[in-house]
Amino acid sequence: MNINSESKTKSTVWVVENGKINSRSDQIATEEPLEIRLIAGEIRRTIAVTMRTPGNDFDLAAGFLFTEGIINSRENIRRLNHCIDRNIKTENRYNIINVELNQDTLPELAPLERHFFTTSACGVCGKNSLESLRLRGCDIIPNNWQVSADVFPHLPDKLRNSQRIFSSTGGLHAAALFNLQGELLNVREDVGRHNALDKLIGSVLLSNELPLNNSIVLVSGRASFELLQKSLAAKVPIVCAVSAPSSLAVQLAQEFNITLIGFLRGKRYNIYSGLERIKL
Amino acid sequence: MNINSESKTKSTVWVVENGKINSRSDQIATEEPLEIRLIAGEIRRTIAVTMRTPGNDFDLAAGFLFTEGIINSRENIRRLNHCIDRNIKTENRYNIINVELNQDTLPELAPLERHFFTTSACGVCGKNSLESLRLRGCDIIPNNWQVSADVFPHLPDKLRNSQRIFSSTGGLHAAALFNLQGELLNVREDVGRHNALDKLIGSVLLSNELPLNNSIVLVSGRASFELLQKSLAAKVPIVCAVSAPSSLAVQLAQEFNITLIGFLRGKRYNIYSGLERIKL
Repeated sequence: MNINSESKTKSTVWVVENGKINSRSDQIATEEPLEIRLIAGEIRRTIAVTMRTPGNDFDLAAGFLFTEGIINSRENIRRLNHCIDRNIKTENRYNIINVELNQDTLPELAPLERHFFTTSACGVCGKNSLESLRLRGCDIIPNNWQVSADVFPHLPDKLRNSQRIFSSTGGLHAAALFNLQGELLNVREDVGRHNALDKLIGSVLLSNELPLNNSIVLVSGRASFELLQKSLAAKVPIVCAVSAPSSLAVQLAQEFNITLIGFLRGKRYNIYSGLERIKL
Repeated sequence: MNINSESKTKSTVWVVENGKINSRSDQIATEEPLEIRLIAGEIRRTIAVTMRTPGNDFDLAAGFLFTEGIINSRENIRRLNHCIDRNIKTENRYNIINVELNQDTLPELAPLERHFFTTSACGVCGKNSLESLRLRGCDIIPNNWQVSADVFPHLPDKLRNSQRIFSSTGGLHAAALFNLQGELLNVREDVGRHNALDKLIGSVLLSNELPLNNSIVLVSGRASFELLQKSLAAKVPIVCAVSAPSSLAVQLAQEFNITLIGFLRGKRYNIYSGLERIKL
C-alpha cells in the first residue's frame, strides 16, 4: 500500500464470513498529517499538524484558522499555497499548507492553547471553556425565523447520498450545509469530524459567504463541545447531529442560543436547545 | 443543567415524533475538560488539557502519559492526586490530575509535539509519523500464537452489554480488553475514543499488567492512526474496530505486525493486517 495524496487508498483485505476467508481489493479512507504554516511578512510559524483525509486542504486550513479564532475574516488571508520549499520532497509538499497573511506580525495564538496548555490559576472547567468563547467575542445568536419540523427528517439521507468517499470506503465523517428549506448546499468529508466541519466552514469563508445566519449544519457523528464551538464561530443557528450530544455541547448551545438537534435519524429526533426556531 | 463531575448529566429534551413534541428528562454523557499536570521535584508543568467524560481519571492521566511516550512504566509514577491547590474551587479540582513523578526533572515532552507542532525541515507525511514511533523505541510485535476466527463475532455484543454509561446516554465511545478466548477483562468509556483507550491502557498500567502481549483490544468506532499508535505502545497484538480503519492505521498495523480487524459487527468482518494470528 503506497502513501499518497488521494482521498482513497487501495488495500488488500481478507473478508471472513461463515468460517471462510476471501481476499479482495478494497478502498480505504486516506489518513495523512497536514501541517498548517502561517506566513506573516518575514515570519514563518507552524501552528498545527492534524491527521486528515487529503482533499479540500485549503478549506481545511482556512476553516481551522477561522473556527479556532486565529483569523477573523477572509480579508486576513492574502494567499493559500502548497509548500514549495525545495528541500522538501515533492510528495510531502501536499501535506503542508502555507497561509500567507495580510499582515507582518503573527496573530494572537493564545486561542489554540485552550486545547493543549493552560496557565490559569483557577483551573479548568466547562464554565471556563464557555467563558473563553465569550472573551473571544462570540455572541448570542439571535432568533430571526422558524424552520418547519418536517425539514429535519430528510437531512441525513441527503447527506448520505452526497458522501462521495464514504460510499466507497465506509469510513468517513461528514459535515453538510443546508438552507432553511432543507436544500443541501455543500458537504465536506474527513476521517476527523472536526476536520470535516473545518473544511465546510473554510469553504464558506473562502467564498466570502460567512456568517451562516440562515443555515442548518448537520454532522455525521456525535455533537461535542468542539463541533459546537466551531459552529458558533461561523454563527450557525441550527446544528444537527446523527448521534448523541455531550453535556458541554448542550450547555454551549443553551448559552449562545444555538438550536441543537441530536439523534437525527429519521422521523424521530431530539431537540436539546433553541426550541423556538422549530415550527411544528 | 448543572456542571458536575458525574459521568452522566441530566437534561430536559424535547422529542419530536410524527409532528408531535413531548418534553422529558434525559441523561447525557458528561463532557468536561481535564488538565494533566506533571510534578517532578519542584517543577510543575501542565502538559495537556483534554475534553473527557469524568470517571477513571487516574487511568486516563496515566494512560495518556504512557501511550504518548512521556513515561515508560508504572515505576515512573510516584503518586496520582486530584488537585488540592487552595486557590482552585473545590468543584474544579476534579478536573485537574497531578501526576507526581519519581524524578526531579521533567521527562522529554517532544513526543507530544508530534500532534501540534513540528520543526522538521523535511515536512510531514505518514512515513515520518511511522518513523517517529520507531525512534521512540516501538518494536515489531512477534507472532506467538493463533486465535480462532470464531472468537471475534461475539466481541461487539460483549462490549455493548458492559457499556454502563452508553446504555443510558447512547453517546459514548468505548475500548475493551479481551483475552485470547474472547473473555471480557476490562472496559472503559468516554466521549473521546482516544480517551477511552487511554483509560483502558492506563488501568492496565496502574495494575502493573503491561505489556498486553496476550490480549485483544476492541474499539467502538473507527480505527485511526492515533488508536493504533496507542495500542502499539501497550504492545497489543490484535486490534479490532466496529467501523472502518484509515489508511495510516493499516500502514502502522502492517509495519509493526499488529493484526487489524475492521467492520467487526457480527459473523462477517475484515482483516487488514496480521492474518497469521487468525486460525480458521
